[in-house]
Amino acid sequence: MQNPTDLIATMGARARLAAAALAALPTGTKRAGLCAASAAIRAQSAAILAANAEDMERATAAGLSGALLDRLRLDEVRLASVADSIAAVAALDDPVGATIDTRERPNGLTLTRVRVPIGVIGIIFESRPNVTADAAALCVMSGNAAILRGGSEARASNRALHAAFADGLAAAGVPRDAVQLVPTTDRAVVGAMLTAAGLIDLIVPRGGKSLVARVQADARVPVLAHLDGINHIFVHASADPAMAAAVVVDAKMRRTGVCGAMETLLIDRAYPHAATLVEALAAAGCDVRGDDAVQRLTSVAPATAADWDTEYLDAIASVALVDGLDGAIDHIAAHGSHHTDAIVAADAGVAEQFLARVDSAIVLWNASTQFADGGEFGMGAEIGIATGRLHARGPVALEGLTTYKWVGRGTGQVRG
Amino acid sequence: MQNPTDLIATMGARARLAAAALAALPTGTKRAGLCAASAAIRAQSAAILAANAEDMERATAAGLSGALLDRLRLDEVRLASVADSIAAVAALDDPVGATIDTRERPNGLTLTRVRVPIGVIGIIFESRPNVTADAAALCVMSGNAAILRGGSEARASNRALHAAFADGLAAAGVPRDAVQLVPTTDRAVVGAMLTAAGLIDLIVPRGGKSLVARVQADARVPVLAHLDGINHIFVHASADPAMAAAVVVDAKMRRTGVCGAMETLLIDRAYPHAATLVEALAAAGCDVRGDDAVQRLTSVAPATAADWDTEYLDAIASVALVDGLDGAIDHIAAHGSHHTDAIVAADAGVAEQFLARVDSAIVLWNASTQFADGGEFGMGAEIGIATGRLHARGPVALEGLTTYKWVGRGTGQVRG
Repeated sequence: MQNPTDLIATMGARARLAAAALAALPTGTKRAGLCAASAAIRAQSAAILAANAEDMERATAAGLSGALLDRLRLDEVRLASVADSIAAVAALDDPVGATIDTRERPNGLTLTRVRVPIGVIGIIFESRPNVTADAAALCVMSGNAAILRGGSEARASNRALHAAFADGLAAAGVPRDAVQLVPTTDRAVVGAMLTAAGLIDLIVPRGGKSLVARVQADARVPVLAHLDGINHIFVHASADPAMAAAVVVDAKMRRTGVCGAMETLLIDRAYPHAATLVEALAAAGCDVRGDDAVQRLTSVAPATAADWDTEYLDAIASVALVDGLDGAIDHIAAHGSHHTDAIVAADAGVAEQFLARVDSAIVLWNASTQFADGGEFGMGAEIGIATGRLHARGPVALEGLTTYKWVGRGTGQVRG
Repeated sequence: MQNPTDLIATMGARARLAAAALAALPTGTKRAGLCAASAAIRAQSAAILAANAEDMERATAAGLSGALLDRLRLDEVRLASVADSIAAVAALDDPVGATIDTRERPNGLTLTRVRVPIGVIGIIFESRPNVTADAAALCVMSGNAAILRGGSEARASNRALHAAFADGLAAAGVPRDAVQLVPTTDRAVVGAMLTAAGLIDLIVPRGGKSLVARVQADARVPVLAHLDGINHIFVHASADPAMAAAVVVDAKMRRTGVCGAMETLLIDRAYPHAATLVEALAAAGCDVRGDDAVQRLTSVAPATAADWDTEYLDAIASVALVDGLDGAIDHIAAHGSHHTDAIVAADAGVAEQFLARVDSAIVLWNASTQFADGGEFGMGAEIGIATGRLHARGPVALEGLTTYKWVGRGTGQVRG
């Protein structure tokens, strides 16, 4: 096998050339490429499903858990949805070339800030093969070249999906190298990608916490990552009890495995319906762990210190009573992960203070934390939810995959 | 001395509290704090100049070069200019709280993207003590807490400047910890800052290439940096010869030590006035190094392969003849540093292609590269010129020191 550093250098050089071509492609060509990629995936579905069956067989023999097998599995319906989501990305507005702002200087120099692609994006993901197609589509539409490195469990599926995708691009006149798949599952390639400064402009890890943590620790290239979603809902004394119960139950129980799920419920000590609220959550099937005050209100398991810092991603919630808005904000500052935090309150003044003072990518008033999702934000798709503070926060879609440049037009101005 | 990691942990925790307070401060309070800091620097000028004299004496005894001594030196005039620039930052528009965009979702949820400070910014700089004040002022105005780590040569000056600055802030009700100065010049503190993920949100290195390169290599925290300014001017066949000579001479010779200075001149092989242009540059005092074709045109020293990748920061320029627009773009892609590149051309179609295809933070048409400067962009001041691709590119001032959060306001929406 090729040395991983050399492999990434070669792929990176090809990606850079493709990126230069992609940056100049008209929107229509990118759209045509994605529609053709979507069609190619449908046309090659037999080959893709056969490859997936091969992965499933190997994974079953290796004893992967049922949840992991389910993530890996493709069928006609899931594959159609992969093809649909590529076509949906093709319908989004193209951010490239948009003017962010314009200023004319007193010397007559006109300065315009224009959106441009970031360049070459490395995507490191685990077992779900549909990420191949989603991430590739978002990169192409935003004018970026992608280098995809998928998990070894999905290697045959990824290869088949990527082949179809690249066939579609090439048929429509988009460079095939716009989306490259690392042709080996050697783990050393991940290390080579993470240190490929100058070759890869941004790394997007998609997967579990250990993958993301490794990427963040080892990367010498900027990383756009979502680590934890320890999301809170604070129910203020002024909250409407029916709304509070509906929002809290939805935020926790609609889907417990998504990063936007509520993990900790903070109830204002002055809220008169705390016991009813906790009981509604338990009645919905949630394992509730309460602090001392909650335990005195109703029958719940005790929360330990670790609970406040735990992302369960399961039908479990920690619940604490807090002293009003300040108590909630202090708890969130100490234990939150700056992902999504919400307040339920009728008092608009209190709610606005919460929205202003809680330092999270997404802050919500009277709405479920499960809205933390690119689709729900009207972005059509997302490459991830960023919990870092730089470049982009919250759901990241096409615009988050662009940067800008300054374009100055003069008539011979010199600084003098 | 305190362990560097513990020291940064303590300073980081104090900075985080100050940042939370700063984020909520009204514009008027930040302005009052900066005006008071400016006034305090004037009021404490005797103490600051005495501290600077101490630094100068130590640096002279240590045999520092004349250029470094000049960077370190403060006098009444320079100190007044430091105070003025703080007051000028206080007059800038406050970016915090500005709405970037608003969208109402079909379910009635309103989503607003609002500018917020980044949080805690670590600034690592070398000998120039005025950076202390400039960087601190930009951080405070943009609502960020700053941890400053200055060079050991300037330690007494930095301490005196920082004391005055913090006195001013505190007098106006801005937390004194909004701007902290690392109280030791132990180099291990730099390492502790670079790895202080969660404590420091962004590192801004201000100094020479070796400092910036070390920061980029070792940082586990995002870095906003300017590394090289290998800037090009391409003179197209259609260029007006008088404009070309004026722009090129200004770009190279106005100030040769600034990062916006032109380092390489690319002349279209079809440009009829190439010899005159090169001679104008030489007549202005520039040491010109030409490729073979340029050497045949006029008497210049030969350029070696290394010249095309060199940032001279001096009265030296490399000059090559290239084959039209494509030749220029290829040369810039191979040797440029993505800082500032310009075209001089009368042909607007060619110029627009250059502006679109050259992948640099700043691209200019018919204007000197020496305009690459926050003041010239109307930003009033800058914390640096970013040559990375993420978050901010080109001159970075107040807006570049902010990020955003998503604020959602609902009426009880659940995802369902």
